[in-house]
Amino acid sequence: MANHPKSAGWMLDPHIERDTLPVGDLPLCRLRLMNDVNYPWLLLVPRQPNASEIADLDRAGRTQLMTEITETSQALKAITGCDKINVASLGNVVAQLHVHVIARFRSDVAWPKPVWGAVPPHAHSSDTAAKLIAELRRRLALGESSAT
Amino acid sequence: MANHPKSAGWMLDPHIERDTLPVGDLPLCRLRLMNDVNYPWLLLVPRQPNASEIADLDRAGRTQLMTEITETSQALKAITGCDKINVASLGNVVAQLHVHVIARFRSDVAWPKPVWGAVPPHAHSSDTAAKLIAELRRRLALGESSAT
Repeated sequence: MANHPKSAGWMLDPHIERDTLPVGDLPLCRLRLMNDVNYPWLLLVPRQPNASEIADLDRAGRTQLMTEITETSQALKAITGCDKINVASLGNVVAQLHVHVIARFRSDVAWPKPVWGAVPPHAHSSDTAAKLIAELRRRLALGESSAT
Repeated sequence: MANHPKSAGWMLDPHIERDTLPVGDLPLCRLRLMNDVNYPWLLLVPRQPNASEIADLDRAGRTQLMTEITETSQALKAITGCDKINVASLGNVVAQLHVHVIARFRSDVAWPKPVWGAVPPHAHSSDTAAKLIAELRRRLALGESSAT
């Protein structure tokens, strides 16, 4: 999927790349895990150049984005048993369109507040990240070759 | 639309009702304006009982939600000339599924942070609210009878 024609000219924003770990490519989005052990926190980044608002995608792209939000939400909920899923497209700092899908627990450090700015990020150990990424890849049927 | 059969048994959460002003009913969602003059801030509330996650809607409902997010985003951007649209479904405090669509400006009181908890809400004057609601209703083709 990394070479889907619509991806031509697209590259992951370097700030997102720095703050996240690779999971794989869904049909529309690059899926990354935020490197913050405070919350199981995914980023969906549509591989479409020059998109910063959801409305910058065409109708088919928006429908596919909703499908990928739903599938990653369900995977995250099934894996973590979280109390709530938070979904958000903000983009005030990083302009490249990206959607946060975050597993929230009543016991987490920021609950019930939103996660942004609540506490400093705390990097995953390689073990916790690898386990979560492996479970996500299995549930979302992502092959080895798409670990980008 | 208020009597759409899928709305049976649904009522607006009283916390949302208290914090917002009526705009109208879209095919899926009740549209409300947050009573906070700090930001032009809409809430989309799907009129479906017992939904708290986006994934609780069926596929057609999710596609319609994405359509209504896009249309309200575009209306808000056209009316306000904002720099960015923020979209979020959080629901850690109010369980009833609702989506925030917020017009953000580089000059607003919270930029670039998310709006939640940034500064206390400041109620609209009846004049600023009425003007914004009238422009939204015109752009979204909402009739007088749907002001709920």
